[in-house]
This record gives sequence, C-alpha cells and structure tokens, in this order.
Amino acid sequence: MIQIAVLGYGTIGSGVVEVLKTNYDSIAKRSGQEIQVKYVLDLREFPGDPIQKILVHDFTTILHDPDVEVIVETMGGTNPAYTFVKQALEAGKSVCTSNKELVAKYGPELLEIARLHNRNFLFEASVGGGIPIIRPLNQCLTADEIYEITGILNGTTNYMLTKMAKEGASFDAVLKEAQALGYAERNPSADVDGFDACRKIAILASLAFGENVNYEDIYTEGITKITDRDFLYAKAMGTAIKLFGTCRKTEGEPEQFFASVCPVMIGNDHPLFGVEGVLNGILVRGNVIGDVMFYGSGAGKLPTASAVVADVVDAVKHLNTNIMTFWSSKPLSLADIEKVQNQFFVRVKKYEADHVQSLFGNVAKITVPELPEEFAFVTEPMTEEAFANAAGQLDGLLGRIRIGH
Amino acid sequence: MIQIAVLGYGTIGSGVVEVLKTNYDSIAKRSGQEIQVKYVLDLREFPGDPIQKILVHDFTTILHDPDVEVIVETMGGTNPAYTFVKQALEAGKSVCTSNKELVAKYGPELLEIARLHNRNFLFEASVGGGIPIIRPLNQCLTADEIYEITGILNGTTNYMLTKMAKEGASFDAVLKEAQALGYAERNPSADVDGFDACRKIAILASLAFGENVNYEDIYTEGITKITDRDFLYAKAMGTAIKLFGTCRKTEGEPEQFFASVCPVMIGNDHPLFGVEGVLNGILVRGNVIGDVMFYGSGAGKLPTASAVVADVVDAVKHLNTNIMTFWSSKPLSLADIEKVQNQFFVRVKKYEADHVQSLFGNVAKITVPELPEEFAFVTEPMTEEAFANAAGQLDGLLGRIRIGH
Repeated sequence: MIQIAVLGYGTIGSGVVEVLKTNYDSIAKRSGQEIQVKYVLDLREFPGDPIQKILVHDFTTILHDPDVEVIVETMGGTNPAYTFVKQALEAGKSVCTSNKELVAKYGPELLEIARLHNRNFLFEASVGGGIPIIRPLNQCLTADEIYEITGILNGTTNYMLTKMAKEGASFDAVLKEAQALGYAERNPSADVDGFDACRKIAILASLAFGENVNYEDIYTEGITKITDRDFLYAKAMGTAIKLFGTCRKTEGEPEQFFASVCPVMIGNDHPLFGVEGVLNGILVRGNVIGDVMFYGSGAGKLPTASAVVADVVDAVKHLNTNIMTFWSSKPLSLADIEKVQNQFFVRVKKYEADHVQSLFGNVAKITVPELPEEFAFVTEPMTEEAFANAAGQLDGLLGRIRIGH
Repeated sequence: MIQIAVLGYGTIGSGVVEVLKTNYDSIAKRSGQEIQVKYVLDLREFPGDPIQKILVHDFTTILHDPDVEVIVETMGGTNPAYTFVKQALEAGKSVCTSNKELVAKYGPELLEIARLHNRNFLFEASVGGGIPIIRPLNQCLTADEIYEITGILNGTTNYMLTKMAKEGASFDAVLKEAQALGYAERNPSADVDGFDACRKIAILASLAFGENVNYEDIYTEGITKITDRDFLYAKAMGTAIKLFGTCRKTEGEPEQFFASVCPVMIGNDHPLFGVEGVLNGILVRGNVIGDVMFYGSGAGKLPTASAVVADVVDAVKHLNTNIMTFWSSKPLSLADIEKVQNQFFVRVKKYEADHVQSLFGNVAKITVPELPEEFAFVTEPMTEEAFANAAGQLDGLLGRIRIGH
C-alpha cells in the first residue's frame, strides 16, 4: 500500500481522485501496490464531499508525514506550487504534476533535485492532456535524432479555428461560443495569444533536444488576427489554418533551432491536417523513424487525470530509482527569427498586383468570389527579415499566415 | 560499453546496425553507455561489407560469450528464433525482437523466462514498425481500463486500399503495383489474407487486456473480396474501406472480448479515417482517457530498426531489472463471433429490393450511376449469426463489408 497526497482539489485534482477510485484494482495491478490518497490539500472546504475527511489546509502536514511517498501537484501556477514541489522532492517524495507553468519555468531544476534524491519528477499531463507524449519522447524515441517537434497543443484555439473553417464564423463569434461552452476562459488571452501553447512547446522541445528552451525566448503569435476572410481562401485552396507550436533544427551550420508558436496554413498532406476540434496532435520527426504522430484529448478532467495517474503508477514502480530524463539546464541554441526561412500566405488589396510582382516575383494569384477587392498569394521560401522588408512596402497588406510543412 | 549481438542480417538486422552507427553518440547518451555490435549471426556471407569481420555462423559463439548482454533477434519466423531467444534469456541476456510470429506465439512464455532471470524480452518493433505502441500500452496507459484497441496494422494492404480508393483501380492491378514497388511479396497471402495483421492484433490485445489472445482464435478475413465496385459506393458515401485488426470488450455480462481482422467501412469521423498509404495507425480507447491515436511508418527498414534500437536502449538502462509487462498466459475470454453485434454494408442485385426490405427492414437504398444493376444498403446492428441467416437468403448478394465505429 502506497500513500499519496493531492495538492489542489480543482478540476484535475478531483479527476485524479476519481480515476484512482474508478480504476482502483487495475491501477493496483499495474503499480504492484494499492494506492491510497491520504491527504488532499486545498484552501477551500468541501462540505458533503467525502474528500472533506482527508482535507488539509497546511502543506507541512503532508511534507512531514513519512508515509506519503508520492505527491500529485494539480494547483497550477508557480506560487506556491514551486516551493511545495521543491520541498517535497528534497524530503524524498516523488512528484507528479499537470502544471505546465511550473514545468516550463523550473523543469531542469526540479528534475535535478529529483535525481539527487533518487526520486522522480514526472509531468506527462503538462502537455497534451491524456496523450502520452512526455514518456514516449523520453523512453521510446531514444534511437533517433529528432529534428522537429510540432504540435497542435491548445484545444481551445483548435476548437475555434475548426469552427471558423467549418461554419465561416468570425473570430469574435466563435470565441463567445467557446466561452459559453466552457472551452475558453473569460479572459481568453492565455489561449488565443498562444501563451499556453508556448509553455507546452518549450517543454516538448527541451525534452526532444535535451537542452533547455526558455519559453520567453519563443516567438509567439496568437490567432487573434485570423479572420473569416482567411478561411475563404483556405477553403478554396483545400488547406487548414492551425495554431502550431514548433521547434525544429534549422538548415546549415552551426546547429541551431527555431522555436515558434503561430498560426500556420497547411495542406491536406500534413499529418496534423485532420486534428480537429478540441483535440490535440503532436508530430515528431526523427532521422531514422520518420514521422510519428500522437493524437487525442489534449485537455479535460479525466483524460488529464489519466495522464497524472499514469505518472503516479510510474512513480510507485520506481520508488527509489530515478528515471533518466534528458533536459539539461544548458540553453538550446535558438536561431534569430529574422534569419529563419519561411513561406507566407499573403492577402493584399487588388491594386497591389504590380507591386507584389516587383517585390515577390511572379507568384500565382489566388482569388475568391466573395472578396473581389483583394487577392492572395504564397511566397517562395524567404527569411522572415526579407519578408518583413518586402511586406512593409505594401500599403494594401491585409494579412499574412506562415505556411507549415 | 555494452556488447550486443544481432541475429539475422536481413532488412531489419542491417537497419539496426546502421541506426546504431548513424546515431552512435546520441544513443550512447540515452543509454548511459556506448553500444557496440560484437557479433552478427547469419548463415550467409557478406563479402565486402564491413560486417563480415564480426559475422558468425554459429549461435553458440554468441550464447557462450559472457560479454554479450543484449541480443537483437531479427531473423523472423519461429524456428530457430524461438530456441535462440529462449536460450539467450536463460543465459541471462536480454532480447529485443522485431519478430511478430515469435511474439504472438511465445510471448507469455518468453516474458516469464525473462522475468525469472531478471532480464528483459522487448518487442516494440513487432507491431507498428517505428510507431511507439508496445511501451505506451505497457507504461503510459496504466491508469485506464482499455475497452478497445483497433489498428491499421499492415502497410501493404493499406497502400492497396488507398490506391483503390483514390484511383478506382482493381484489386489485381494495385496488387501488381505493390509487388513491383516491393511493398508486397510475390506470395502476398500473409498481407492480403490478414495473417500479418492477425498476429499483430493478438500481441496488442494481449498487452491491452493483460491476458493471452491466441492469434489462431481471431476471426480473420483479408481484403481479397474488396473490389473497385465497393469503392464506388465508398466514394459516394464519403467513407473509407480499411483493414482493421481490432479487439474490444463486448456489451453485457460476462466480460468477454471480440477479436477480428477484417475490412471495415468507416466514416470520416473515425480517428483512423485519415491513415493512408503504407502508414499504420493504432487507436486505443480507455474508460478515462477517451480515444488516443498513434500514427506513423508501420514498416520499413529504418523506422522498424529505430524501434528495435529503442528497445536496446531500454534493455541497457534496465540490465538487471525486469520491466513489468502484463501479458499472462491465461487465455482472454473471447466471445463467439456468431453472437457479436455488427452493422453491415451490403451490395445486392437490383431485383432483391423487396426481398431486402422483408429481411432487413426499411433500409435506405444507396445507388451509384456506374452500377445500374445493383444497389447497396447498411443494416441496423445485428448479430453475425442473424446477418448470415438473412444474407444467406439473398441470391443476388454481391458483397458485404462490416461497418467500423
């Protein structure tokens, strides 16, 4: 019998308690031991909920109880999560967390503390909800040199973009709908401005390449400038518009990587083309394995709790053994975005036709009947800098979206 | 430094040697040790190939060399692979194999021998080529009770079905093309009759449900009866026809499972709808995680070798620790296929219209202009037995394909 504690009884924390109860027997079989929740920490009271019996308000009760060997952290945010997790690891308890802010900011430090104490710091649920991606990166794709990891990592924005694509709805209309359905927060910035995806791709890239990607260094652009007009072209071109978090090796020497979160236009041959609605999909490209894709529910109470509990099972199976994780605190060498090559889908006013030709060469014009006063085109690959220079000369620029490959 | 041996220098075996060489440094980092191939076993000679220096023809050289701690088995077939692997495990060497026949037939026995000797028997590459699926099933989805596992597990037949769908080509024409491209063998039976997929779903189902599925007990039907006419309807209906290996819990008590390999027709809302060409996709459905999908190259020299080498890395990281694997020799309780409920897509001659209505109720007629002398319909869910009885009364029956959900 293993005793655990759950910090934070919100959506994910209560999901963890529920999953441990629902699948008690099969989880015990997989862990080799029964798993008992001894404490739940939350500042609130939950009168009438059976959890009330094991509810504590003071973390030190948990920290100083030697019976507690694994701690689940589902509070979110970095304060006090960081302090609690650090203290727990230093006290010789393994920690499983769903907290992407914590992992993106303190991952290498907390992994190192876990290693020094021969315990584990596990965070499968911090990216992609229930989709197994952290453990596959760490333990399955070990024969490969990964050169790209790209994901649709935010279910809210993917739901919105899918709705805009299918129904021709405007950004504001789908945002209201997503808020009404509880998919988007009242303040939707973390989702629509790409901040959530940014933390997630920082975690994935750090694991894929073994060196630290600071999420603050990632070029991040949300979906707020994507309009129903862009989707008229996407429909005509048979493409999709998705919010990608990506990190990939750049061409040439020295070895550098380019990390970004931004909307991209992709063709139907892209492995992530079919990832729709609130689902998440993650594509990993390796030098021997080729493309591998992982797909499923990227959020939600039970899928996320399933990933946390799978970490608890792993922590129980490795009580006194550190599972090697390659995420050094050394910064991954990131390329200057200005020097990175991209292709761009560009919308301009009709009168810019000659100007476009002189700036971008002989590009094919794309027109849709609904928008007679404008046209669109796709550039050849060019540096971000060169594109910005050329696009800056277009008075009639209406928008641009990078092309994903 | 760890010494390993590779049994069989065919496509996969030579791929393993190549991957170990190509990614030598990163593999050493992930394993914690450098990995050296000390022997390659093959009956043939390879004059001019650097491998010739370490080539041996007698397995006992490897078996009796205490320096060899991990053995890669890529010979295929069960004889002498079974004897060699068993002897290796009993001699305290871990074994990593890509051999689905071996794993499907002797999995539980070889896992038990490995456990008793505190070594590992690993077989990530036996299903889905490079796609990580064995380790995720065993180590990631541990919080869930899985109720279904379904895969497109054979790249050859998926290539053929995709070609038939896109080009309207006949079965014989695409088979010839697949043979010319090296995707299909001269004797294509293992692929087109479903035997390859059958062994793979037996392995996946055994791991997903923890009890043994004998591949000989799986209802297996290949794709040889699928015609270009079926695809005319699929196109009109917006559906796809895929060869699924599946194992799922049946409804009601007692707890039973239904395992099959057969062509199915699926709608575009099915997670495996977009898995095209030689790619494989595997869908896992759990009671808390919901649907998770894994997707990538299901075969091919390097992707498969990548999975074998990932197993070697894991074996090296767990030299004296058995990785728990849940695959008991106890047989999984399989339902009698006659009692299983399915829906069927059925093609009949035009004159059967009234007869169809009396046998199957008021089903919608589907017609395509190219085939004026027939029509198709989809049945309500019914047992296989009831369908067989009703269909047996139709003189004008032209074909039937199960519906996948």
